[in-house]
Amino acid sequence: MRRYPLDRMSSTPDRDQSSGQDSGLTYAGAGVDIGEGDRFVEIIQQHVRRTHGPRVIHNPFGFAGLFRLDYDESLFRKNYREPVLVACADGVGSKIKLAVDLDRYETIGVDLVAMNVNDLIVQGAEPLFFLDYIACGKLVPERMEKIVAGIAGACRFCRCAILGGETAEMPDVYSADELDLAGFSVGVAELGRVMDPSRVEPGDVVIGLESDGVHSNGFSLVHRILESSDLDPTRIYPELDEHKTLGEVLLAPTRLYARPLVRVMKNYTVKKVITGMAHITGGGLAGNLERALHAKIDAVIDRSAWNTHPVFPFLQEHGNVAPEEMDRVFNMGIGFCMIVRESFAASIQKQLLRLGERPVVIGRIERGSGQVVLSEA
Amino acid sequence: MRRYPLDRMSSTPDRDQSSGQDSGLTYAGAGVDIGEGDRFVEIIQQHVRRTHGPRVIHNPFGFAGLFRLDYDESLFRKNYREPVLVACADGVGSKIKLAVDLDRYETIGVDLVAMNVNDLIVQGAEPLFFLDYIACGKLVPERMEKIVAGIAGACRFCRCAILGGETAEMPDVYSADELDLAGFSVGVAELGRVMDPSRVEPGDVVIGLESDGVHSNGFSLVHRILESSDLDPTRIYPELDEHKTLGEVLLAPTRLYARPLVRVMKNYTVKKVITGMAHITGGGLAGNLERALHAKIDAVIDRSAWNTHPVFPFLQEHGNVAPEEMDRVFNMGIGFCMIVRESFAASIQKQLLRLGERPVVIGRIERGSGQVVLSEA
Repeated sequence: MRRYPLDRMSSTPDRDQSSGQDSGLTYAGAGVDIGEGDRFVEIIQQHVRRTHGPRVIHNPFGFAGLFRLDYDESLFRKNYREPVLVACADGVGSKIKLAVDLDRYETIGVDLVAMNVNDLIVQGAEPLFFLDYIACGKLVPERMEKIVAGIAGACRFCRCAILGGETAEMPDVYSADELDLAGFSVGVAELGRVMDPSRVEPGDVVIGLESDGVHSNGFSLVHRILESSDLDPTRIYPELDEHKTLGEVLLAPTRLYARPLVRVMKNYTVKKVITGMAHITGGGLAGNLERALHAKIDAVIDRSAWNTHPVFPFLQEHGNVAPEEMDRVFNMGIGFCMIVRESFAASIQKQLLRLGERPVVIGRIERGSGQVVLSEA
Repeated sequence: MRRYPLDRMSSTPDRDQSSGQDSGLTYAGAGVDIGEGDRFVEIIQQHVRRTHGPRVIHNPFGFAGLFRLDYDESLFRKNYREPVLVACADGVGSKIKLAVDLDRYETIGVDLVAMNVNDLIVQGAEPLFFLDYIACGKLVPERMEKIVAGIAGACRFCRCAILGGETAEMPDVYSADELDLAGFSVGVAELGRVMDPSRVEPGDVVIGLESDGVHSNGFSLVHRILESSDLDPTRIYPELDEHKTLGEVLLAPTRLYARPLVRVMKNYTVKKVITGMAHITGGGLAGNLERALHAKIDAVIDRSAWNTHPVFPFLQEHGNVAPEEMDRVFNMGIGFCMIVRESFAASIQKQLLRLGERPVVIGRIERGSGQVVLSEA
């Protein structure tokens, strides 16, 4: 299913070639490399298999993964009257560069999954499966295993199967330490319940879910700040965190909001209680929440309602970044928003708390013109 | 649906920053850039929309694409009793480097789609939708438009909707001219008709579909050959092609076998006439066809049955590559294989010819041990 075996065959030799051996223009098809490749594939497959539920069909021969729509639980016949597949693609942006620079690969796979499944849930979809693309200049098995373990752990957490993936070793395109990740996920939603801005009404409440820091957006600016200041990502800055280095704080993975949100959504399959959602990525709170609004309402947000994660004032100060730039680039402490009917807000907050989230009422829907209005901090 | 709008916001500034302007550490949110970004998004969306059939649901607000399983044609209720989703991920490998070096972006998107949909069809699946991930150091709109136009044209040809995509400008990871592409596609298959090696029987016939050249595998070796020889990709070599440069011959896109194969498969929904398929990618004919066999049969292939595309002897000679290396890395003229019941072979060949393919009976299934046995050329 994963293309590892053949990729190993077609990529191993490039390393031998580029290292200038006198082996001539052949692909190195030697036993040791293949054996090492096979072992690597086996390790990866163990991680992948841990994400497989009964709907994944064993398919050892093909390069494509198989996912059964109907199984015991009769997913579609029982729970969905008009099922709609929802799909999205996303990467982790320049956060990968920080992971590479610090040689820390444990959590970047979590970011990759989160960037995708959090976008799916915004449409009212439940994630079904995930595929990854990992490109690198040199395939380092230990590094890859950490990345895939991170992806697999996040997928398990979100009840999402890894259905396939591609690992490409491309020394002509990437240098030995370069790496990039892309992810792709598919979910299912009930057609009549797909998110639709027209449902949002004045009086609805905006619940914000706190983030764990920068998540996976704005890292181009983070890199500029690190370059232009004397900040050292391997140092601990006590005003930021007393135990973690700056690099560790910055690499904190994107929260997997999809899991608690699926649970909460399942409690409201009859009434339309959740009227909008937003995953706060590039564009910030305003840029993303805006997409959940229609032209006759505003979301009026009270910035004093939540505690900004300390990483944001820290970056702002050291980088001398204007406040409005911070708002446009970073999540500023709120990683996900839900717009809900007022009478259900307290109950939904309670459920979210029980599911490990930190929910805060951050604002309210009023008559307006499709804007997000942010109060002064 | 495509993440272009916000990506522009989060990426444009990186260029300004990295060019060392005195604008300080801000994201350049200026009007001209945004306007240019919007125009680019509009052009891209036009290409994307041309791939949308009635099952794609308009979703201007979300970052995820929506695909209706049931529509007029009642895809699932009528045609599929036990539908299985089939998904795969793949890139174009180091072929992208040749496209970049020659500044030719028209067909690399076709390769991207072909690498994915051809893998889907091998499982007996009909492609439904496609998503792309394009990463670059600097977003050059004209370049991106050519790539996306290629993807869109290939998707239309295969009746596959572009449901989303991500374009990431990452100057911290890619240099200005670097670029990488990944694709993901999802299709549907009838559970009972998913390809299964156990169906292949002695007496079955192997039909090979000729390739258009190197397709999208083996480019690491192609680059080594170009580097080590005095070959000039911008020159015409008449022994290879009288009108096309070497670069153009090498960039010839991967054939979209998925389209004719879907048509042929639809003619055999009752009897199991097509017993195996193989998309010939890294690993060559033997490495890929092997995956369609079970342990008690061999595929005995007669190499004299087809005309090797001239690019292969040309590369072999100029690179001084051993024949067995050529076989392991390249498709050697056959890009796709079907294993079919003997009594249907002539009819299937006729259909494939009518659909624009060049089918050749290249071998036969015999009792054996799961091997592909290649005769001498």
